Amino acid sequence: MFESLPGFRDFYPEDYEVRQALFQRWKNAVESAGFVGYDGPVLESLDLYIEKSGEEIVEQLFHFVDKGGRRVALRPEMTPTLGRMAGSKANGMRKPVKWYNIGDHFRFERPQKGRTRCFTQLNVDILGEAGVAADAESIHTLILVFRAFGLTGEDFYIRLSDRELWSFAMDAWGVAVDQRGHVLSAIDKMERMDRDALVSWLSEHVGELAGVIYDDAKVLAGIHDLDGLIAWGHALDLSPEQRNALDARMAEWRTLIGALKDLGCSDYVVIDPGIVRGLAYYTGFVFEAFEKRRKSRALAGGGRYDNLVGKLGGPDLHAVGWAMGDVTMLDCLEFCGKTPHEAVRPKLFMVFGDSERPVCFADVDALRGSGCRVLYSYRANAGFGKQLKEASQCGCSHALIYGSDELADGEVTVKDLGSGSARRVKRGELAAFIAALDLKGS
Amino acid sequence: MFESLPGFRDFYPEDYEVRQALFQRWKNAVESAGFVGYDGPVLESLDLYIEKSGEEIVEQLFHFVDKGGRRVALRPEMTPTLGRMAGSKANGMRKPVKWYNIGDHFRFERPQKGRTRCFTQLNVDILGEAGVAADAESIHTLILVFRAFGLTGEDFYIRLSDRELWSFAMDAWGVAVDQRGHVLSAIDKMERMDRDALVSWLSEHVGELAGVIYDDAKVLAGIHDLDGLIAWGHALDLSPEQRNALDARMAEWRTLIGALKDLGCSDYVVIDPGIVRGLAYYTGFVFEAFEKRRKSRALAGGGRYDNLVGKLGGPDLHAVGWAMGDVTMLDCLEFCGKTPHEAVRPKLFMVFGDSERPVCFADVDALRGSGCRVLYSYRANAGFGKQLKEASQCGCSHALIYGSDELADGEVTVKDLGSGSARRVKRGELAAFIAALDLKGS
Repeated sequence: MFESLPGFRDFYPEDYEVRQALFQRWKNAVESAGFVGYDGPVLESLDLYIEKSGEEIVEQLFHFVDKGGRRVALRPEMTPTLGRMAGSKANGMRKPVKWYNIGDHFRFERPQKGRTRCFTQLNVDILGEAGVAADAESIHTLILVFRAFGLTGEDFYIRLSDRELWSFAMDAWGVAVDQRGHVLSAIDKMERMDRDALVSWLSEHVGELAGVIYDDAKVLAGIHDLDGLIAWGHALDLSPEQRNALDARMAEWRTLIGALKDLGCSDYVVIDPGIVRGLAYYTGFVFEAFEKRRKSRALAGGGRYDNLVGKLGGPDLHAVGWAMGDVTMLDCLEFCGKTPHEAVRPKLFMVFGDSERPVCFADVDALRGSGCRVLYSYRANAGFGKQLKEASQCGCSHALIYGSDELADGEVTVKDLGSGSARRVKRGELAAFIAALDLKGS
Repeated sequence: MFESLPGFRDFYPEDYEVRQALFQRWKNAVESAGFVGYDGPVLESLDLYIEKSGEEIVEQLFHFVDKGGRRVALRPEMTPTLGRMAGSKANGMRKPVKWYNIGDHFRFERPQKGRTRCFTQLNVDILGEAGVAADAESIHTLILVFRAFGLTGEDFYIRLSDRELWSFAMDAWGVAVDQRGHVLSAIDKMERMDRDALVSWLSEHVGELAGVIYDDAKVLAGIHDLDGLIAWGHALDLSPEQRNALDARMAEWRTLIGALKDLGCSDYVVIDPGIVRGLAYYTGFVFEAFEKRRKSRALAGGGRYDNLVGKLGGPDLHAVGWAMGDVTMLDCLEFCGKTPHEAVRPKLFMVFGDSERPVCFADVDALRGSGCRVLYSYRANAGFGKQLKEASQCGCSHALIYGSDELADGEVTVKDLGSGSARRVKRGELAAFIAALDLKGS
């Protein structure tokens, strides 16, 4: 018997239903914030990813040469497709562009808990807005998504940082531009590696500066309030121009924190410069969402990436956005007892004898056409008892019984399979009667 | 600037919205008939497709060797994944299994009108039921899908045929088992090739029989009513056992046509033995849906395939189902003036001055949290006139104006941007007021 490939998932109906409920809440939440959906191909030119992330990305990709001789890859993330699509039409579009996508992504990695070779992401991006109003809206939307599942500040929090602060720090330390990626990598590793190992690794790139950088970085990473950040900035050794730029950045910090407060986000957002995000293309505020009650992978991550669209060959286009994966999110929701389900709707089972079939099937057709879910037995000659048993086995909420007595009065018996109660309903009023059923109350 | 690969589509928001509306109606229609969703990976083992369709399928596939040395392919159709998934759990599942999938599929073909290298299909299948009740339900569900878009018997029809009838005909003609695929191919080509060319092609496989087969096949393909089919069957030269089997098959035809009539399908279904379906795995009734008012590709096609799950290594499992593609369906809907759109919902734009921002943003948060779509300007200091202009440019239906006068009374002004009418609403009643808005009536 064939099996699915390692790291790829089959979704049988119970799992499919949960995922659809997840997608539906994602959609409703981000649309409430004015985002509109878009989509692009899961297969793209390999060069699109190399241009964005460098040759090393190829190691993680499902890539091949197609029958037309093109180097192609299954998309590992959405941002390059977004940049390509928005970039090619940027000049004609009203700004800000607020787009979301729910789509599959592929990485050739070792399958493990929380990591599959194919996963679905919600990507939410704002393009064409330089001001922090966009950063605030991006973070607010992320919080709306968590809240859409009933999660609260007890369940999750968002760590907010700023690549620019680290740039000022590197200015003050005197780190050369071509070494800054290594320093950011070291900061990214501070939570997982001890001082000796990290200073030793970093000294290969920045020499004797490594120790100072580590200790200073540890101080900045430990600041969790705006006043502390401002005081930290005052103490930096900067040129007058750098000083002016830092003052302007601190004003933006103040604006962002104020907007987040007004948008009801204060309970969820923690200032935390220790977050730098692994990806090279972030340029400003960055953030990651985590569970609060246990250690886990980031539930979502994002930030500002103002240079990417231009790098992909498009016009300069400011951008801020984030992504959330289905695997980690569903795991979090299960842990919190908030696994989503689609709304419970009536599910009807038609019970009838052979001679009532024409009347019954006419109602099957009409009720299905009006949106009701209607099942019936394929065993034409089964007794009513057997049909009622099948109704229960199918998980139906109600049976509609087409007995000859009822039909003589133009009625059918509607039996609630949960409570066992039954009542007669005129055939012409069935659709309205079913639409009015409150399943929780029935 | 990068572009999408040939034959792959980008969906900008306007196109995305139409596709989502298509998917939503697909989902609602098939769920009304009691089908539940499932999904599998877009990447599968290449052998899964070779096992089902033979080595020649490889020509049409996007396939490659992954980093783990596996021969893999992007799925060209859903049925092998369905067979794999259902087959591996068949023994534990209640029959009939009624599953649907809406998913992407990939074929390396020359891109042309109605044919892309990546397309989305609705697949709807019933597994584990041998009787014609399943064939009837499958066809009824297909008709429900068309009707969900407002299409009528003036717009589409379904051609219903039967592989078994052709088997009886081949029995009578004395066609050897290993030549039957060629004869079916010839029948499939009758509508597009003239007699001489087709007889010449067929005679390479069946010799002098080719002329008789062509002429007899033309007669059968021209029969469009049940009585005609029965009369055709009576005239066949069959053994007594074959005669009994044909009589039983004609009884099944009568049952199917009767069920379809009771289910309100008579206006849409035409008996048409000229349809045989290209794929090798069909075993019984087969059908294809077409536009009525112009020549076009089939809008959907399917039938019974009782041997496939067993062939893929699973248990024997009766099966009937069909698939519908998004490209041809959207083209048909556009031609019929029935392009679907998502329901029109209010879209609000918040208009406020700097000092009212905290109050306004609190409402942004609350209204979004209750599911309303809410936008606002990122230009904090823009005048009310400019903000109202942006509201219109964003396609908002209403502006909520947070003037200091209104707020002194705990109210905001709700302005209908279509009619220009305005009224004041208590802040605490905004969500209810917006939920009650009837956009068509406003």
